[in-house]
Amino acid sequence: MTRTRFHEGLDELKDRLLRMAGMAELSITRAVDAFRERDGAKCRLVFENEAAINANEREIDELALDLLAMQQPMAVDLRFIVAVIKINADLERVGDQAVNIAERVEQLLTLPAVDFPVDIPLMATTAGTMIRMALEAFVLGDANLAERVLTMDDTVDRMNYEIADVMIALMKKSPEVTEQAMDAIIIARNLERVGDHATNIAEDVIFWVRGADVRHHLGGEANH
Amino acid sequence: MTRTRFHEGLDELKDRLLRMAGMAELSITRAVDAFRERDGAKCRLVFENEAAINANEREIDELALDLLAMQQPMAVDLRFIVAVIKINADLERVGDQAVNIAERVEQLLTLPAVDFPVDIPLMATTAGTMIRMALEAFVLGDANLAERVLTMDDTVDRMNYEIADVMIALMKKSPEVTEQAMDAIIIARNLERVGDHATNIAEDVIFWVRGADVRHHLGGEANH
Repeated sequence: MTRTRFHEGLDELKDRLLRMAGMAELSITRAVDAFRERDGAKCRLVFENEAAINANEREIDELALDLLAMQQPMAVDLRFIVAVIKINADLERVGDQAVNIAERVEQLLTLPAVDFPVDIPLMATTAGTMIRMALEAFVLGDANLAERVLTMDDTVDRMNYEIADVMIALMKKSPEVTEQAMDAIIIARNLERVGDHATNIAEDVIFWVRGADVRHHLGGEANH
Repeated sequence: MTRTRFHEGLDELKDRLLRMAGMAELSITRAVDAFRERDGAKCRLVFENEAAINANEREIDELALDLLAMQQPMAVDLRFIVAVIKINADLERVGDQAVNIAERVEQLLTLPAVDFPVDIPLMATTAGTMIRMALEAFVLGDANLAERVLTMDDTVDRMNYEIADVMIALMKKSPEVTEQAMDAIIIARNLERVGDHATNIAEDVIFWVRGADVRHHLGGEANH
């Protein structure tokens, strides 16, 4: 089967989406490093990265539109392109969550340091792993792997509740650190939202793969 | 110009998206009514509505895919369909925010009532108006109206910060209502997210309309 320009376009779309995912994950890592190290310079890197992520989102959307317009795509390719458009939007919002976290860190840097009795970096690692797994499921077209992402979301949700509980107890005991504890709660919530975006991505992968499967079982043929 | 099945499909897509928006907004209204009236029954209505909203999201996506597959759409129609897919995802998440609020209200109902010195229903009304304006901009294809939604987002963000400030002061003064104040802060943040979704929708409208405009100025012709 010869590679058409259309199929090269699909490959490019996939590559660009993976780079977009890498940028979004990097922003989260930097924001949480900024939190752990109380490093304002890392916050500024997150803010700079946001503009690049937003520009990338638009470019990926335009490429997807070009592909939709290029020829009459087969149903399996349509589902793929629509999945890319949706995943793209979620990745952009992962970048927004990184910005939210970095804003909170900047606020924390204006306040006395508090040793929080919770493991926010672990939560960040877990949420980041969900994003990476969801994208791996997308690359492999693996709905089972995508379903494992959905399960991990419960872990991240539980971490979020635990952090909130510990922080509320801290606020009651030490009202003078209420602002800092609030910031930690909001950062944990932002990470929980990252997990939600990974879940959305995993659902889009399932939508794409299962739809393709259904089509395949109905007698169509997968063409990539 | 005769109406083709394709254009009837576009109209149906628009109608269904508007109904989806109505459902999402109803969920927010009910969740905030539940908060104001301390009414657990309204929370349960929100949870029931979520399943209907999720099912609707999938059906709208399938209809959009059918339309993309039906014929070689013109660029202006492609942009419209892609905008619908993205707006649809945001509306589903507005429904999720309503669920988040209702969960917080259920938690509040287990605690002694507190008279919060903030106007959460006003914030909800503002966020709901943003959703309605964004959808109106979509129906009218009015990028200027969509831009007004972007401006309103600053108001909602400011309300969120003000509520958080007042609540943090309340927690410091009265640590015994920390849980309730936290719930109010989280509800305000959920409403702020509703404003973000309205902003996303407005941006998608601008993307669709301006894209169509550009195309028009390049010599293409709008066909609906």
